Amino acid sequence: MSDILRRGRLSKNPGEEMRAYTSSMEADKWIFEADVYVDMAHTLMLSEQEIISAEDCSKILFGLLQIKEEGMDMLDFSYEDIHISLESRLIDLIGEEAGGRMHSGRSRNDEVATCIRFALRGELLSLLEDLMKLDTTLTTLASEHIHTLMPGFTHLQHAQPTTFAHHLMAHADALERDISRLISAYGRVNICPLGSAAFASTGFPINRYVTAERLGFSGAMTNSMDAVSSRDFLIECAAAFSNTMINLSRMAEELILWSSQEFNFVELDDTYASTSSIMPQKKNPDTAELMRGKSGTVVGAFAALITICKGLPLSYNRDLQEATPHIIKSAHVTDASVRMMTGIMDTLAVNTGIMDAQSVAGFTTATELADTMVRDAGIPFRTAHQIVGTLSRTTTTPTLQEIDSVSSEILGFKLSDKGLTEAAVSGALDPMSNVERRLVVGGPAPIQMRDDLTEKKRRLSALQKQIWDMDLAIERALDNLEEEVKKAI
Amino acid sequence: MSDILRRGRLSKNPGEEMRAYTSSMEADKWIFEADVYVDMAHTLMLSEQEIISAEDCSKILFGLLQIKEEGMDMLDFSYEDIHISLESRLIDLIGEEAGGRMHSGRSRNDEVATCIRFALRGELLSLLEDLMKLDTTLTTLASEHIHTLMPGFTHLQHAQPTTFAHHLMAHADALERDISRLISAYGRVNICPLGSAAFASTGFPINRYVTAERLGFSGAMTNSMDAVSSRDFLIECAAAFSNTMINLSRMAEELILWSSQEFNFVELDDTYASTSSIMPQKKNPDTAELMRGKSGTVVGAFAALITICKGLPLSYNRDLQEATPHIIKSAHVTDASVRMMTGIMDTLAVNTGIMDAQSVAGFTTATELADTMVRDAGIPFRTAHQIVGTLSRTTTTPTLQEIDSVSSEILGFKLSDKGLTEAAVSGALDPMSNVERRLVVGGPAPIQMRDDLTEKKRRLSALQKQIWDMDLAIERALDNLEEEVKKAI
Amino acid sequence: MSDILRRGRLSKNPGEEMRAYTSSMEADKWIFEADVYVDMAHTLMLSEQEIISAEDCSKILFGLLQIKEEGMDMLDFSYEDIHISLESRLIDLIGEEAGGRMHSGRSRNDEVATCIRFALRGELLSLLEDLMKLDTTLTTLASEHIHTLMPGFTHLQHAQPTTFAHHLMAHADALERDISRLISAYGRVNICPLGSAAFASTGFPINRYVTAERLGFSGAMTNSMDAVSSRDFLIECAAAFSNTMINLSRMAEELILWSSQEFNFVELDDTYASTSSIMPQKKNPDTAELMRGKSGTVVGAFAALITICKGLPLSYNRDLQEATPHIIKSAHVTDASVRMMTGIMDTLAVNTGIMDAQSVAGFTTATELADTMVRDAGIPFRTAHQIVGTLSRTTTTPTLQEIDSVSSEILGFKLSDKGLTEAAVSGALDPMSNVERRLVVGGPAPIQMRDDLTEKKRRLSALQKQIWDMDLAIERALDNLEEEVKKAI
Amino acid sequence: MSDILRRGRLSKNPGEEMRAYTSSMEADKWIFEADVYVDMAHTLMLSEQEIISAEDCSKILFGLLQIKEEGMDMLDFSYEDIHISLESRLIDLIGEEAGGRMHSGRSRNDEVATCIRFALRGELLSLLEDLMKLDTTLTTLASEHIHTLMPGFTHLQHAQPTTFAHHLMAHADALERDISRLISAYGRVNICPLGSAAFASTGFPINRYVTAERLGFSGAMTNSMDAVSSRDFLIECAAAFSNTMINLSRMAEELILWSSQEFNFVELDDTYASTSSIMPQKKNPDTAELMRGKSGTVVGAFAALITICKGLPLSYNRDLQEATPHIIKSAHVTDASVRMMTGIMDTLAVNTGIMDAQSVAGFTTATELADTMVRDAGIPFRTAHQIVGTLSRTTTTPTLQEIDSVSSEILGFKLSDKGLTEAAVSGALDPMSNVERRLVVGGPAPIQMRDDLTEKKRRLSALQKQIWDMDLAIERALDNLEEEVKKAI
Repeated sequence: MSDILRRGRLSKNPGEEMRAYTSSMEADKWIFEADVYVDMAHTLMLSEQEIISAEDCSKILFGLLQIKEEGMDMLDFSYEDIHISLESRLIDLIGEEAGGRMHSGRSRNDEVATCIRFALRGELLSLLEDLMKLDTTLTTLASEHIHTLMPGFTHLQHAQPTTFAHHLMAHADALERDISRLISAYGRVNICPLGSAAFASTGFPINRYVTAERLGFSGAMTNSMDAVSSRDFLIECAAAFSNTMINLSRMAEELILWSSQEFNFVELDDTYASTSSIMPQKKNPDTAELMRGKSGTVVGAFAALITICKGLPLSYNRDLQEATPHIIKSAHVTDASVRMMTGIMDTLAVNTGIMDAQSVAGFTTATELADTMVRDAGIPFRTAHQIVGTLSRTTTTPTLQEIDSVSSEILGFKLSDKGLTEAAVSGALDPMSNVERRLVVGGPAPIQMRDDLTEKKRRLSALQKQIWDMDLAIERALDNLEEEVKKAI
Repeated sequence: MSDILRRGRLSKNPGEEMRAYTSSMEADKWIFEADVYVDMAHTLMLSEQEIISAEDCSKILFGLLQIKEEGMDMLDFSYEDIHISLESRLIDLIGEEAGGRMHSGRSRNDEVATCIRFALRGELLSLLEDLMKLDTTLTTLASEHIHTLMPGFTHLQHAQPTTFAHHLMAHADALERDISRLISAYGRVNICPLGSAAFASTGFPINRYVTAERLGFSGAMTNSMDAVSSRDFLIECAAAFSNTMINLSRMAEELILWSSQEFNFVELDDTYASTSSIMPQKKNPDTAELMRGKSGTVVGAFAALITICKGLPLSYNRDLQEATPHIIKSAHVTDASVRMMTGIMDTLAVNTGIMDAQSVAGFTTATELADTMVRDAGIPFRTAHQIVGTLSRTTTTPTLQEIDSVSSEILGFKLSDKGLTEAAVSGALDPMSNVERRLVVGGPAPIQMRDDLTEKKRRLSALQKQIWDMDLAIERALDNLEEEVKKAI
Repeated sequence: MSDILRRGRLSKNPGEEMRAYTSSMEADKWIFEADVYVDMAHTLMLSEQEIISAEDCSKILFGLLQIKEEGMDMLDFSYEDIHISLESRLIDLIGEEAGGRMHSGRSRNDEVATCIRFALRGELLSLLEDLMKLDTTLTTLASEHIHTLMPGFTHLQHAQPTTFAHHLMAHADALERDISRLISAYGRVNICPLGSAAFASTGFPINRYVTAERLGFSGAMTNSMDAVSSRDFLIECAAAFSNTMINLSRMAEELILWSSQEFNFVELDDTYASTSSIMPQKKNPDTAELMRGKSGTVVGAFAALITICKGLPLSYNRDLQEATPHIIKSAHVTDASVRMMTGIMDTLAVNTGIMDAQSVAGFTTATELADTMVRDAGIPFRTAHQIVGTLSRTTTTPTLQEIDSVSSEILGFKLSDKGLTEAAVSGALDPMSNVERRLVVGGPAPIQMRDDLTEKKRRLSALQKQIWDMDLAIERALDNLEEEVKKAI
Repeated sequence: MSDILRRGRLSKNPGEEMRAYTSSMEADKWIFEADVYVDMAHTLMLSEQEIISAEDCSKILFGLLQIKEEGMDMLDFSYEDIHISLESRLIDLIGEEAGGRMHSGRSRNDEVATCIRFALRGELLSLLEDLMKLDTTLTTLASEHIHTLMPGFTHLQHAQPTTFAHHLMAHADALERDISRLISAYGRVNICPLGSAAFASTGFPINRYVTAERLGFSGAMTNSMDAVSSRDFLIECAAAFSNTMINLSRMAEELILWSSQEFNFVELDDTYASTSSIMPQKKNPDTAELMRGKSGTVVGAFAALITICKGLPLSYNRDLQEATPHIIKSAHVTDASVRMMTGIMDTLAVNTGIMDAQSVAGFTTATELADTMVRDAGIPFRTAHQIVGTLSRTTTTPTLQEIDSVSSEILGFKLSDKGLTEAAVSGALDPMSNVERRLVVGGPAPIQMRDDLTEKKRRLSALQKQIWDMDLAIERALDNLEEEVKKAI
């Protein structure tokens, strides 16, 4: 058939290059399924509102069901976008007399905005599921390592002893905020622009609430011009994806560091490593490196989206078409990265012996030694800090005698005279006893960590329930919609 | 006094250039007040937990109160950062014996993270208040313009008639999502890292819940390594600020367009305009242009933050210091822009006559004409679209006769034979009658808009209450803290 | 319904998922041809240096020629990357005994870096050719419009009259800097990393200069670790592409503005416009809008690249693989946009009547009037500025009498007494006479513009010659290489 | 005096907040000196062209000299920008009759564009000087370490032995491209927009070439609208700065890694390190961490600039004012970082013993062993790769016997039967002999490195001369200008 859009107003057809430049087809595949559901919900409502006849409704729904079953392969991709391909296919199947009525009371502007939100909420739910799995994997792994000593780092310098469990849970808690952020974003994504038409809504007596509900949205966006013009929800999601990827890039960085000959804390499973085309002995943590790199890809998507939206007047502008591929790409890369990290963590070999041995290297117990001086000898922290700092220039395992010598210089008296004992000093210098004293909420003491892990699992359960509820709400709505469609045919 | 930090471990002092390079002093001014409160809450807790004596506590609080009253001017800014300046000033005032004990059970790593969250939540509250004012201003302005016709645009082409109220509310609804987003972000900002110390918490028996509560936080961050290492909350806020600025850049773009000789829809008050150094007749919408430009500044802050955090291993790294100035800058620019936009909108002169006249230019009523053919003559929308498209090549005010002539060509019959009347055609071509038919939720029909505005005001009230509650919670906590301090002296 | 959220995902096994995550195959298609040439040049050199036998060389080259002719379709894409696919295909064709020797003295690290530079210089040359065409198109269009008056804008306000030629040449000159920038970048792209092997070069006695020359590079990169680790050339190119796209976004913005009903300065050819699915009368400047949007895509590629490279230690890291798709995408989008803009400009309908009429609207002649007062009445510019500014509040075509009245108030005397005449005033207020007086280099006076256009064409010719020379050098090198290969078989 | 700009056209003055929002004063301090020079050159030309009298010229120059000597402190910073402050100060000093004539034939639009280019070229020259110093420092340090073995890394895994000199020169060569890039950018910065006035040039018979030359520019920008509207040179410079900072971030990353207890390759001088407020034993590589972080700040400036310029119509828009602070910030941060890195490298303690010992850890000699099999036993590289890969699973120092055993399994014969000897195997496994064989251009063999360093120093000398010439050209022009000014008074 001739082009159902251009046949009216425009006399020339675009060339091949122009078609390639302006086509949204690649991105549109992402919304094919969404578009069919949107068409179904809209058609049912048109009939209920008596904008189209029950008979035309039935024909259209019949055609849509067939298109859904055929899949995208039957569509003619030479059209400008999937909405037109789909409508053209419908008209091919059931004729223009009925098929030409489906687009009543709406426009591609609200249609595409609805489809993007529909498809994006699906991506969010997948990502949330996968983040839950990763968070759970980390929490489980931590449960096995609450007694595994390792050096804690600041400035990549050994700072104080801690446990592998404590370190892992730092990442796990960061991911929990990612989950929370995505749930917040979901609330602003899962609202329905449908019925806004080009931007001014329509003169047909449509019912926007009913389509929103049928499609599983939590409500209808109010202002119809806002509904077709806004892409702030894409920016918000891309920012949340970026935050997640930055968190993953930090985990990846550590995996790479820890896989080095120098650290040798962990070894990635062969599945997640590769070798060299020239250096046959190499085992490279490629997956972690790629993940660190892919953070750039997701950040780039954010930068693209915000540049695209900057300075656009209302309402719909074609620039917005260019936004969609970036959100698809960034959603897919983020989700794949989360899944990959779960696999890496699930199969990670941990060299606990090396971690343990390194936990005291670099005088990591210095802080506890200073704290012990404060508690046992009653001197101020700043003074203890100075004494230990001076000791650290020459030793990492100071004796009480050496301590006394330095304190005499600085304070004019020996700390042993103020109550500091050999036992206290050697307790402070032992990494496990050191860690065990960190009995503060969020600290690495194994007893504390056990409590914190219990609490963490409780929080994860609550989040999981919330996500399942979100998932279920969508599932129920679409199941209902499909049944209504079948009834109406 | 000599440098309380370096005197222990390091033998050389840094040069002037190095000091300038590594200093955080400029940004630290932003957290001065926060730091004093944090010191107070920490000191009270140390005493309650019997980590320091009541007497030392009293001395420290006395010193802190004095520092608060003196203000920043009495601090020695040659130190590495404000925490050390403040502690040094305290020791100058009350001696090292007591003053040297304040830093027990914590580190600058948790201290600065707490201060940043404290100061940033203040910025968020200010911005929320100012966004509420802007949203309210737009809503009020819209209330006055529900009958002001204007052309609605897609692709910057006249598309369909709408009202100025409808257009304004598109922006107002977008801002409401910004408000909602900032409230979500606030929940992830207003949690307390204090007591995490360097990253491994501390061997002192501190109580992290009590300091968190005293400082008005909604809770304590759990994992102590996460607490000092994470800056995802800065990235989230900068992204939310960017989204707000992009929304403002779109409003600014329209104000600039509408101020042009070609559009002439509005005139900015002289306060928000400027003239030229060479062209004496000019009145330029400078404030709007700068606002559009400042969106770049805020986006740049986001890019900086995310680049800074990418690939950092845990826990604290000095790179994080470089993050703070970007969040300060982006918060201030966003808030100032919101306030400026409120002023512009409050004083905007609207050329309703021109808007009205333009509302039909460009055959904006074509959609309604096609819809009328669908309703009255019963033809499918796609066919009506083709007929009106063909008419639009030669006229923007087609008569029934012209319509019949085109329909005869395309369909083989006259639409007047199918029920289309002169009256229906002329009704479709009248812009106000056109708008009045858009009686759908979110549409421009004045009756609908009145309902939507009522609903909007209700939502704004609810949001305002929520923000006031957030504000009040902080205020009460800090008032209590100050009273406790006074009692403890 | 759960299939719309997770369909396919759970059925994939982790091996496949990992493969998809780490594969570079999509991007590698871009370097297929480059890789074959690189293999050929490397093989010839290995034989010359007696690292492989003439016989093995002959076999390998035979296999490579066949692979070149077969094209990519015969490659097994399940391998990790194209280098391995290609080598495997070679071994399939000629056996491992000979085929297994091709990779001697190199690594995938230098191989891929060489291929990227090879393919990217091709993109740069295409883009340069297309930018030359666009610059020439603008220059030609300008030649036709040196007498076409239009209002010149600052702050999107009418400021002073100018000509369409003058306006067009502003864009043409900006593009000339883009061309110059890309030529600079080309010099830093077209150098050869081959022979650096993994990063430490090789113990085989290879000759790096000879492969560099055969492949058309201007030289070999010195340090072999730098050669495989650096991607600064990608960042530089992406930045240059971004600059070009920003320049195009500014042209696109103007085309969109000028196509609006309000401006109506131009009309895009139907080929570059589209209509609406709902508003049949619309003609939208979609191509220009998409181009404006695509600037975001290219900026996003830059952001991705720079985030990827930040903080990477030497030498090769797998992160770098993630960089390549971004440079491909940004090169292609930029080139397509340049070509599209050339088409738009070539077919643009210009409403010269409207531009002319608007050239005086908004008192654009005010500056010239002030300047005339300075020249004829001898008053300082600042005073004249004040007088004209005061006049502009009430009129845009002041008479000598009105001028005298204002000058009397401000200066205490009439300007007509100081030499200002009716004729001078009316001359200043005429837009063409106004423009004709701007006889300064780079100004809009038609006589000046003719000179500037002549000079511009001379510069374009010189640039074209330079680009052709760059092109020719590559072509000759590759022709020679192919002949040598044929001889060696 | 009353506001010399607003007194004409605008009736209301802006409030304090608006003033703060729109003021460019902070950034303008950066161009104060430039502005005075520009005023001088413009004034001299106005007199030569008889646009102002010699007497007025003399008075203006007298005033400008006084303003130059007074410095910025005498300016009234409550004005909109420095141009007006300066002009107002001039009028205060010499009266409006003469002072009011200085602004003839120009506008703030061309004035500020000229000043930015003037000040930015100064920043570029400083940065170039400092990059030369850093590159020279690295080259000198490398000269001392051509025999210092260390492990070379790919994927942060030990890959092959190399030398510290070789590693350092990788960074040095990358910086050389930064230098080359900045010189390219300089050519596009150092051209003069002056005389373009608001955008349409001027009706006064000015001479643009003469002012350009007097101010040390290499020429005048042609099209006057382009001259005031373009900020692509800022984007180009910010991109070049970003590239430099990314290179520095990679050096910084390595310094941080190498300072860790695990690597312990280097120790930063105390000047460039700091300690902890809580962990007294710590010595943190803070300067390197901050530098890595500051790469984000410079990238952020790029993102800001490109967002600001996107989609702006011609000619000058006030948005452009917001661009300037970003270029200042990014220039200063980059230059300070380069200087800091020079200091770090100049004082770096290198633990050559540890580097040497690590150079073989991880079977780094595997590639050479495979290559030796290829050369001595005549097997294909791919086969040798397989044999060594198999060996590497169990040993890192295989004996000839073990090799034979594996080759028998894979190939069916012993490599010792094909010519592989004990001596050849042990030679391949020795790191220094390994490195010495890498006698290829750019490789680490000490003999090769000595040649490459000689060549590098030659290139640096040539670059230094080029930079000094650029510097000298500016210096001479400004000296001449100052003398002409003194003569003209």
